[in-house]
Amino acid sequence: MLKVLKSQFEIEELMAASFGIERESVRVNNQGNLAMTKHPEVFGDKMHNPYITTDFSESQVELITPNLRTVQETYDFLNTLYDITALHIGDEVLWPQSMPCDIPDDKDIPIAEYSDCEKCQEARQYREELFKKYGGKKQLISGIHYNFSFEEEFIEKLYRVTDSTLSYRHFKDEVYLKMVRNYLTHRWLLIYLLGAAPICHESFLTTCKKLMDKLDGESYTNEGAISYRNGECGYKNHTDLYPDYTNVQTYVDSLNRFVSEGSIQSYKELYSQIRPKAKDNTNLLSSLEEEGIRYIEVRSIDTNPFEKGGISITDLEFLHLFMLYLLIKEESTKRISNWQDEANNNQRHVAQKGLLDVWLSRDGQEIKKVDWALEILDEMHMMNEELQLGKSDVIETMVERVRRPECTYAYRISALCKKEGFINAHLNLAQAYKQDAYNHRYKFYGYEDMELSTQILMKEAIMRGIHLEVLDRADNFIALKQGEHIEYVKQATKTSKDSYMTMLIMENKTVTKKVLERNHIKVPAGIEVFKGQSLELAAKRYENQAIVVKPKSTNFGTGISIFPQGASKEDIIKALEIGFKHDDTVLIEEFAKGKEYRFLVIGDEVAGVLHRVPANVIGDGKKTIRELVEIKNQDSLRGKGYKTPLEKINLDASSELFLKQSGLTFESMPTEGEVVYLRENSNISTGGDSIDYTDEIPQRFKDIAVASAKAAGAKFCGVDMMLEDYTNAEGDYAIIEINFNPAIHIHSYPYKGTERRIAEKVLKVLGF
Amino acid sequence: MLKVLKSQFEIEELMAASFGIERESVRVNNQGNLAMTKHPEVFGDKMHNPYITTDFSESQVELITPNLRTVQETYDFLNTLYDITALHIGDEVLWPQSMPCDIPDDKDIPIAEYSDCEKCQEARQYREELFKKYGGKKQLISGIHYNFSFEEEFIEKLYRVTDSTLSYRHFKDEVYLKMVRNYLTHRWLLIYLLGAAPICHESFLTTCKKLMDKLDGESYTNEGAISYRNGECGYKNHTDLYPDYTNVQTYVDSLNRFVSEGSIQSYKELYSQIRPKAKDNTNLLSSLEEEGIRYIEVRSIDTNPFEKGGISITDLEFLHLFMLYLLIKEESTKRISNWQDEANNNQRHVAQKGLLDVWLSRDGQEIKKVDWALEILDEMHMMNEELQLGKSDVIETMVERVRRPECTYAYRISALCKKEGFINAHLNLAQAYKQDAYNHRYKFYGYEDMELSTQILMKEAIMRGIHLEVLDRADNFIALKQGEHIEYVKQATKTSKDSYMTMLIMENKTVTKKVLERNHIKVPAGIEVFKGQSLELAAKRYENQAIVVKPKSTNFGTGISIFPQGASKEDIIKALEIGFKHDDTVLIEEFAKGKEYRFLVIGDEVAGVLHRVPANVIGDGKKTIRELVEIKNQDSLRGKGYKTPLEKINLDASSELFLKQSGLTFESMPTEGEVVYLRENSNISTGGDSIDYTDEIPQRFKDIAVASAKAAGAKFCGVDMMLEDYTNAEGDYAIIEINFNPAIHIHSYPYKGTERRIAEKVLKVLGF
Repeated sequence: MLKVLKSQFEIEELMAASFGIERESVRVNNQGNLAMTKHPEVFGDKMHNPYITTDFSESQVELITPNLRTVQETYDFLNTLYDITALHIGDEVLWPQSMPCDIPDDKDIPIAEYSDCEKCQEARQYREELFKKYGGKKQLISGIHYNFSFEEEFIEKLYRVTDSTLSYRHFKDEVYLKMVRNYLTHRWLLIYLLGAAPICHESFLTTCKKLMDKLDGESYTNEGAISYRNGECGYKNHTDLYPDYTNVQTYVDSLNRFVSEGSIQSYKELYSQIRPKAKDNTNLLSSLEEEGIRYIEVRSIDTNPFEKGGISITDLEFLHLFMLYLLIKEESTKRISNWQDEANNNQRHVAQKGLLDVWLSRDGQEIKKVDWALEILDEMHMMNEELQLGKSDVIETMVERVRRPECTYAYRISALCKKEGFINAHLNLAQAYKQDAYNHRYKFYGYEDMELSTQILMKEAIMRGIHLEVLDRADNFIALKQGEHIEYVKQATKTSKDSYMTMLIMENKTVTKKVLERNHIKVPAGIEVFKGQSLELAAKRYENQAIVVKPKSTNFGTGISIFPQGASKEDIIKALEIGFKHDDTVLIEEFAKGKEYRFLVIGDEVAGVLHRVPANVIGDGKKTIRELVEIKNQDSLRGKGYKTPLEKINLDASSELFLKQSGLTFESMPTEGEVVYLRENSNISTGGDSIDYTDEIPQRFKDIAVASAKAAGAKFCGVDMMLEDYTNAEGDYAIIEINFNPAIHIHSYPYKGTERRIAEKVLKVLGF
Repeated sequence: MLKVLKSQFEIEELMAASFGIERESVRVNNQGNLAMTKHPEVFGDKMHNPYITTDFSESQVELITPNLRTVQETYDFLNTLYDITALHIGDEVLWPQSMPCDIPDDKDIPIAEYSDCEKCQEARQYREELFKKYGGKKQLISGIHYNFSFEEEFIEKLYRVTDSTLSYRHFKDEVYLKMVRNYLTHRWLLIYLLGAAPICHESFLTTCKKLMDKLDGESYTNEGAISYRNGECGYKNHTDLYPDYTNVQTYVDSLNRFVSEGSIQSYKELYSQIRPKAKDNTNLLSSLEEEGIRYIEVRSIDTNPFEKGGISITDLEFLHLFMLYLLIKEESTKRISNWQDEANNNQRHVAQKGLLDVWLSRDGQEIKKVDWALEILDEMHMMNEELQLGKSDVIETMVERVRRPECTYAYRISALCKKEGFINAHLNLAQAYKQDAYNHRYKFYGYEDMELSTQILMKEAIMRGIHLEVLDRADNFIALKQGEHIEYVKQATKTSKDSYMTMLIMENKTVTKKVLERNHIKVPAGIEVFKGQSLELAAKRYENQAIVVKPKSTNFGTGISIFPQGASKEDIIKALEIGFKHDDTVLIEEFAKGKEYRFLVIGDEVAGVLHRVPANVIGDGKKTIRELVEIKNQDSLRGKGYKTPLEKINLDASSELFLKQSGLTFESMPTEGEVVYLRENSNISTGGDSIDYTDEIPQRFKDIAVASAKAAGAKFCGVDMMLEDYTNAEGDYAIIEINFNPAIHIHSYPYKGTERRIAEKVLKVLGF
């Protein structure tokens, strides 16, 4: 197999696979007790949210990534799911450990609650039966499920180049079943390398307690323990059941037999360490029989307490290599008849005492854990080299864990708990992860190349269980789907809810003004000057008046000249000529006095009002400007290159020059409360501050903003309004522009003032 | 006044005015008889069409331009109204003469018919009363009404610089009333210069016949006649009524007196040669009293039979100068008390015998017509010079008409009728105008800088009486309004009926394909290649396959490479690199076999299907390629620079080279029926032919086109479909593109096949 892969496949083809992660985690309060609160409503109906739902318990969150094409994407998506969840469970945190926190007696463990639908009631009933059979506590054990499949093209090519006598469907089944069988044999290694559940809180322990030693005042362990979850005390069937993995049919038949014999009530209850999965997993067995295996689900992985998402990128990369290894590795010809029992014993043994120098059984022969582990990793090294996968670092990390047990998660978490206590140690980790989630609350990991507004909208959709598909990343083009309802969205606010004409009206300043005037909304009076017309005459008319000269259709201020004090005829002609470089029509408008406010209209309401001020610091009488800037720049909302809602203030030549005009340098020390501006312009891109005024602005101006949007027929609209004095509800105003693709991130995460839940309103207008 | 204007005003300010034309014309059949058919339904409700309606008779069309800013626009708009009307009255033509055609007896003259509304019934009743009082025949006399006003800014400035003691409102009234009084005195000159109705058909004559001589077998005239319309036999009140033009109040009072005395039933019945008009002309008198004069309406002008629109551009320019002259000319201090009677007599005299060397009366003194005329024109020459208006040519043309009566329209039409007969001469002119209208059927005069698709839509809207406003010419941005219903349209097919998202989906080829595939519509299979990805791998995958390589988002074929025979890996890489110059994503797609057809989807149906073929000629065995091209280029649909639906074939170096490959030159003589192509590409811009296939294409493909549009949510959509064999309804297809701004002109005016009424369908979808 290795030879075939080496000779026939490019590395991109070999690595083309699909990954999905499911991570369970119980919610805990700030004392480390199991949360007794409901699964938050913001996550929607738990039966229909494909990303964030509950598992067995109402307090047990399950995060589910979609199937993704790279390890990195999978890792990023999982972390984003974590952040979304962690920031919407109030004061609670997500317990970063497979073994439960401080839990109540069985009778008080809340089973997940469902609405009235038939499927919902089935889900509830299934959980109640599990509760009766296994008790509630064991159901709270959490972990990672890892879904893997090769790209179809890969298997197709493999089929072509190996001259198999099987049909394609059976060939594919055999590919996955070989991996499954190999996995069963070698799974003990994964448990050693990734296991991270060597301790149980006393509240969890019932039967197993006697086997264990007290670690601290509240938890128990035993020497060499790696993963109680995968051990005798873990989540498993009452009797060990070994399905027949010879082919799909034997597998299905054996599962049916287990059910008919009454060992389990449904195939779902078979807690195997790996499962072949089908297209339709709600009817798994028939779907397997009809269409064969789609992917495999690895279920041995513990939550890594040292990772926010519960699994590290290195471990994910290793898992991917391990999958390839399982495909390549020839199955032993010396397999003993009860090989599944042997593999099961090896698993338990490693789980319970794996940090010690234990012996395992291979094909009926004893072998040292370390020797076998290194043999496997050696073979993986060879695979890596032969196929030029370039992942020797990853394998080497695992060799290290084998050679030095103190590098394992199990060892490290035991050490930490011994020091800080089981509950405290995990609570501290969880709090740190929650803080990290808050610091990056504007961000969708793995999609940082997309616009912030789109990332924010995507997070909001995910939270509410709206199915997300990125149609075109570079264009910020996504599809949102819930049931039969599909909406396409580009750049967060370009949607089907606005008509094409709405956008065309806003795009054209001349037409915008005509439409607003027709609707009795005040815009700066002015004229259009066309290329070829007499500039002289136009300029003469506006000589010495406060005006703005701007091209008809450019944006972002290009080609605009502003004369707040009026200008000479010659200067106006010059300004017109500048404008004509951008458009054949240039507008001369009265200069609107006051400050500019951005009103974000969504649907029928103003969702946010923002005002921008130039980069500045406020003195404390002790620190220099340079020091004050440094401190201000530490805000996690500030970054570089538009990846964050605000930009870091840059102490560049231009700000140096600006300060010089007031006789200041970077080393000057402003007095307490003194505001020092660092440049003229108020752009966010040069370190400006955005300040939310939504609650301060009188309703009248909001009504005008909404009326302006409605005049153009817009559901999503950024209205730029000049106000001489925003506190005067009867005061003067002028609409200087309405914009068809308003950013939402500036309102969602302003420098000062309330963070507005804009994305939620966007989704509402979209009908979700 | 002249001094003030000279010293204080720029020429642009002086010439800033507003013009409007109303032109009446009776419809006649191809024998020259008054048409007995109904006013065509396509022009909508005659009470609500502001552009095309009827006057007194059902057979008497009235064309009304909006108020326009320049003489040229006014002229162009009038000609467009003519073309629209002439092409929608079946075999009939518009009679190009103020005096009627061959008309029936009074009892058979059809009075305009109206629907049931209250105002409609009033209109009908008013006409019936006129019929009783004046008979039907006189009501068929047609002519030109000329509406004029200065720009408000002009009058405002004039008010400022003249230190008038009047209020502004009264100053403005006085400006127009001075012009009105001056007009009355000098109107005889306009009648001389523009009069064109020196002949009456025998069917018209009742009382006047005895005064006249037979011109030909069917019509009558008398020596020196210029305008029966403005003479004793013309359209006038039974007794001459002279309103008091001292000020607006005296004017209104005198009109009210005429009505109360029973001389006329309504102010509308006062057939003066000029009328002061108000803002609300349906309540003229009260509106005049309340708000003063808005504009003036000159009513002396005959239809010019030598002009399609009924008035020449030179005459319009002269009228504009004449208006300025009326403003400037100081009123005579020697005016006699019955000056209106004197002016009236001068008018009648010139109308009836003006081509002779007649004497007129000025301030009670006799003066030769020629002397007075030249005196006026001299003063106009002076005005032109002093104000640097640059219009001496126009005035000189009129001097010529004064000096040489044979240059007058009256003389020329008499001569033509003598030669061809009254009916025939006018019918021939009308037929020629109708042919001209047909030849330019795609064109909106004066808006030739706008896209053809927009011009066509604008004409259709005008025809149906939908109010048109051009919001932004350069952007082809218009507003259409009917009652309260307003629709904005850009480039003919960008409207409020499509959502913004619809356009965004179509703009992005990747997203388009995903959306079509999701809707089970066949698109060429393919992949996306992103900048930075391995081109090698992508190229290898498509080596030697028939493919198209294209950037994700460019249009018009830029950056596209087509390999119908497949390509080497190197060539594909090159093609990808070319693509990356235009977009960061490049698509590789299977090459779709067959011919390309453009399906134009409007609403729920395919409005047209078009196929394009390269520039070509068909031999006749007698003419050279050069001669055949010359003949083909004579088609009025062919022009240069995209001003016409098709482009002229250009015998350039590239077509010479192309012919050379088949051993041909421009002088080769193809055999009869032989098709010779002149270039490879089928672009219309290089002389290609557009061929309508709407009726030939099987319904299945039309359904697919509609489904494609619906997939993107589009009401207006150009679907580009590849068909291997369009006659095979079960055959293969592939959608290669859907376009959000489909041109309509190519379907409206194809080279071959039925001209499709696309604009009508567009308006229908817009809800008109």
